[in-house]
Amino acid sequence: MIHSFLMIGQSNMAGRGFLKEVPPIYDEKIKMLRNGRWQMMAEPVNPDRSTSGISLAATFASSWRLFHNQQDDIALIPCADGGTSLEDWSVEGALFQNAVLQAKAAQKISTLRGILWHQGENDSNGEKYRLYGEKLALIIKTLREELNVPDIPLIIGGLGDFLQDGMYGQYFSEYHEVNKALIKFAEDHDHCYFVSAKGLTANPDNIHFNAISQRKFGIRYFKAFQQKTHILESLPDEDQMIETIYNRPLTKNEKIEQLQYQFVMGVVTANEFQDQIVLIH
Amino acid sequence: MIHSFLMIGQSNMAGRGFLKEVPPIYDEKIKMLRNGRWQMMAEPVNPDRSTSGISLAATFASSWRLFHNQQDDIALIPCADGGTSLEDWSVEGALFQNAVLQAKAAQKISTLRGILWHQGENDSNGEKYRLYGEKLALIIKTLREELNVPDIPLIIGGLGDFLQDGMYGQYFSEYHEVNKALIKFAEDHDHCYFVSAKGLTANPDNIHFNAISQRKFGIRYFKAFQQKTHILESLPDEDQMIETIYNRPLTKNEKIEQLQYQFVMGVVTANEFQDQIVLIH
Repeated sequence: MIHSFLMIGQSNMAGRGFLKEVPPIYDEKIKMLRNGRWQMMAEPVNPDRSTSGISLAATFASSWRLFHNQQDDIALIPCADGGTSLEDWSVEGALFQNAVLQAKAAQKISTLRGILWHQGENDSNGEKYRLYGEKLALIIKTLREELNVPDIPLIIGGLGDFLQDGMYGQYFSEYHEVNKALIKFAEDHDHCYFVSAKGLTANPDNIHFNAISQRKFGIRYFKAFQQKTHILESLPDEDQMIETIYNRPLTKNEKIEQLQYQFVMGVVTANEFQDQIVLIH
Repeated sequence: MIHSFLMIGQSNMAGRGFLKEVPPIYDEKIKMLRNGRWQMMAEPVNPDRSTSGISLAATFASSWRLFHNQQDDIALIPCADGGTSLEDWSVEGALFQNAVLQAKAAQKISTLRGILWHQGENDSNGEKYRLYGEKLALIIKTLREELNVPDIPLIIGGLGDFLQDGMYGQYFSEYHEVNKALIKFAEDHDHCYFVSAKGLTANPDNIHFNAISQRKFGIRYFKAFQQKTHILESLPDEDQMIETIYNRPLTKNEKIEQLQYQFVMGVVTANEFQDQIVLIH
């Protein structure tokens, strides 16, 4: 059985963590949608921009795997788009329509189990927070109707506390009010859980969660999903869960996938490939 | 006005040329589809796999720009998927359905002007070439009907002459017959033009066109489109056209895009960014 999750929002849902900063995660039971089909997850999961990198998707999926039947697959439907405002996500817009089409394509080959949302940086000025809850409610209500999933959990994450520290800090002067609007939204709506970004840190741009923070955020999103509760603090075991995920031994298929990647990228030669594939089999 | 092109096929349409081997191409009048919207092209254009790289898309678009009104935009709709057979592209399948959805989304915000196809490596054994023309005809006929574009050009490229030289050579024993089937298809169908891969070379895997060959292939695809003719040999001016494309001065917007990429990727600091942005403005 394949359990799928729709991932929507702006750049911090798409992911901008630097790939070189954390170990990769391979797991043949974690899929991602590409061109209407599943393939084994490889980061970046959500290639909305050439800057796309580590997102919360991988550890969300990996921690889901730790708590579920090992025969089941988890599958990611990446539809986040960098720099987009809540207005850009209105139900008449192209982003919303694309997310519906992608999710419907995924529903033909999986069961949709949850929606993950991270957005709000672009609404952190000009008093946009005042209408944030109302606008998000319409987006989620319409999405649930279109996909016929009235009760599946919606997990929404908070904005990082670093946003005002950087070169673009002036644009995020109301990030705290957006966070309050997100918490209130989660409190006011059934099947909706808020995940705090407390303690998470940024890339040098002070806009995007760094790779290790995205790894932690994914664990928190999963805990909120699993326990059906708001996560208002960092989790005592998030570092340990990340280690458990990294230390999982690779299966034969995953080793072959890694080796083929290195061959296609020119990192290993045909001779090296042939020597190493023998050791895997 | 925005003129769009649908790009379908397998990995050599998606592109596996190494990004580090050729200069990047920036042009704010070249767009690519992401999440139902246009954004400025940045390679890889077709992120079907983590191995995705340089494709023929960029020089196809750049050479189109050299011969068209400078006010017009060209836009790419990337739907190619690595390792896919002609059977995978059958009209009932997910790849075809995805390409139709993406192209229809693009048609809301552009005029579809052409279809670019490169596929056949996965059909280069087991006498699959015998039915290649017949199967491709049904795919293209159905695609034209669904998109309501009966007369727009279809450009189809040949397979590389290196395929039998590598570790996987045994799987490509009939690549020459597939090439003949592609040429015959182009000869037998109106508005269809064949583009030879003669002289193009491969990555060390002997499967994928290397970056410079993809640059040349894009020029040939454009010439076939522009002149409505088959391109059966390498072009005498393809290297020169590539130089012209590389030497085009960047606009202010393109320089800002490049600088922002470097800032988000942590390559330039906030201070360096602020120093350099002043020089652009």
